[in-house]
Amino acid sequence: MVTGATGFIGRQCVLPLLDRGFEVHCVTSSPPKVATARGVTWHVADLMSPTAVGALCREIEPSHLLHLAWYTEPGQFWSSSENLRWVAASVGLFAEFQKCGGQRVVGAGTCAEYEWGGVACDENETPLRPATLYGVSKNAVREILEAYSSVATLSQAWGRVFFLFGPHEPAVRLVPAVIGPLLRGERAKCSHGRQVRDFLHSTDVADAFVGLLDSSVTGAVNIASGAPLSIRELVERIERRLGRSGDIDFDALPASSSEPAILTAATSRLNEEVGWRPRLALDDAIDQTIGWWRDQER
Amino acid sequence: MVTGATGFIGRQCVLPLLDRGFEVHCVTSSPPKVATARGVTWHVADLMSPTAVGALCREIEPSHLLHLAWYTEPGQFWSSSENLRWVAASVGLFAEFQKCGGQRVVGAGTCAEYEWGGVACDENETPLRPATLYGVSKNAVREILEAYSSVATLSQAWGRVFFLFGPHEPAVRLVPAVIGPLLRGERAKCSHGRQVRDFLHSTDVADAFVGLLDSSVTGAVNIASGAPLSIRELVERIERRLGRSGDIDFDALPASSSEPAILTAATSRLNEEVGWRPRLALDDAIDQTIGWWRDQER
Repeated sequence: MVTGATGFIGRQCVLPLLDRGFEVHCVTSSPPKVATARGVTWHVADLMSPTAVGALCREIEPSHLLHLAWYTEPGQFWSSSENLRWVAASVGLFAEFQKCGGQRVVGAGTCAEYEWGGVACDENETPLRPATLYGVSKNAVREILEAYSSVATLSQAWGRVFFLFGPHEPAVRLVPAVIGPLLRGERAKCSHGRQVRDFLHSTDVADAFVGLLDSSVTGAVNIASGAPLSIRELVERIERRLGRSGDIDFDALPASSSEPAILTAATSRLNEEVGWRPRLALDDAIDQTIGWWRDQER
Repeated sequence: MVTGATGFIGRQCVLPLLDRGFEVHCVTSSPPKVATARGVTWHVADLMSPTAVGALCREIEPSHLLHLAWYTEPGQFWSSSENLRWVAASVGLFAEFQKCGGQRVVGAGTCAEYEWGGVACDENETPLRPATLYGVSKNAVREILEAYSSVATLSQAWGRVFFLFGPHEPAVRLVPAVIGPLLRGERAKCSHGRQVRDFLHSTDVADAFVGLLDSSVTGAVNIASGAPLSIRELVERIERRLGRSGDIDFDALPASSSEPAILTAATSRLNEEVGWRPRLALDDAIDQTIGWWRDQER
């Protein structure tokens, strides 16, 4: 059972789940308009309704739950009261899933659960001191899921997402906001670009989540490339793949004062314990994304 | 608006709220069978239903929320999945309350949020490392409430309850399990009794919650006497107030291996910042409770 199955990550999980032999049940508030892969059953349900969630779990009787649904409106999600509604929906879903015989949950966490310091965020060492309502809410759901699995028959893991890009990303976000103007022959705007981040393509993030679900690893696992770079390096690489040069205006946008200079991930749990590594090289990930945006412009 | 208004603490909050001039709206799943104080409006609502909670907050438009409702079944509450349902209900309620113009929330926390060490639990110093699903769940709700109030127009505080006794306590719990047999002329059973705890009468716990609600103090505040004693001292005191002696069999019951030797509270926030101190001396609290149980036996 996959929640958020039409989302930025969720939509990319379906194929890797099928590849690994899962019977896939996607839950969404609005089903996709186009046909999707064979072997997938779509369920329209309101995860905010405990009654609907109970009925859903009794109908599907899922063995595995990949819980990706959350409120993700760019610019809004950090502080919105929607975070509280998704905490409620998430923990209620876990209880119903377990009651209906569910065995393993993997939830979507965030690098915003960590205290943002400067060294690579490490699952075993970096303090969890989220500075935002979003980070606090995700971390609280994780705490509850871990404690619940220690008293109920339930295996759990928690994939902490860092930075990502790929098809279907909201156009206001960094990578689309650079690709779009450059594709139209315009100049692109950026902040100073010195922020160091860890980026993955959304299909790799999804594949890592599916690998984690299909493993017996428990607890928090960073979902990241382990190969950080600066925003400036990333956007100049995008420019180069588009055959352009010097068409990005750095310092044309303000950098968020609340975001740290360096936010990167230790990936030994993901690499060694889950046994997962990125499939796409950065240039291939960029090319794939540029290709998708080019198709949209047509 | 008071949730859990028919509960062990909640039922004692009504009079102090009226005393302080609040217009009291009690929320319950099953209304009291006997008439209650004038100036109180009872609302029957299922807090597990987001729809019902939204309707309730729109109807009452409460300025203050005293949220005491939770799952409290003795022996079960530490590990029950009901904790997840109450996390969901609580954070959903906070969001609806704020949306309907609510200004201040006080929630019921627990000493089980702290790491149980040996020194008196201090709100500013003792690590929060709950060892149980109940403690994790309460602590998670507090974290979310604090983070929410830092981004929304909402004042919050969190009363951490330690140990208590009084009328309407489930008969299996310590104080009733000692008073009951002694009242019937039988011997009472106890564990070794060397555990050191902080006890308050339930009317004092309720009065402290109302004092906290009516203050502008924010964050976690221990609700405790600041005068710890051993279980043995407490039950021998009960025996003495009943005019009995030597009728308690210590070591006749096992002591829980998971509970700490010492669990006491720093009370300077409650005493100095909230300006609240216990009203009942321990002997008076015991006498009141004995009187109530005596009335039940008739």
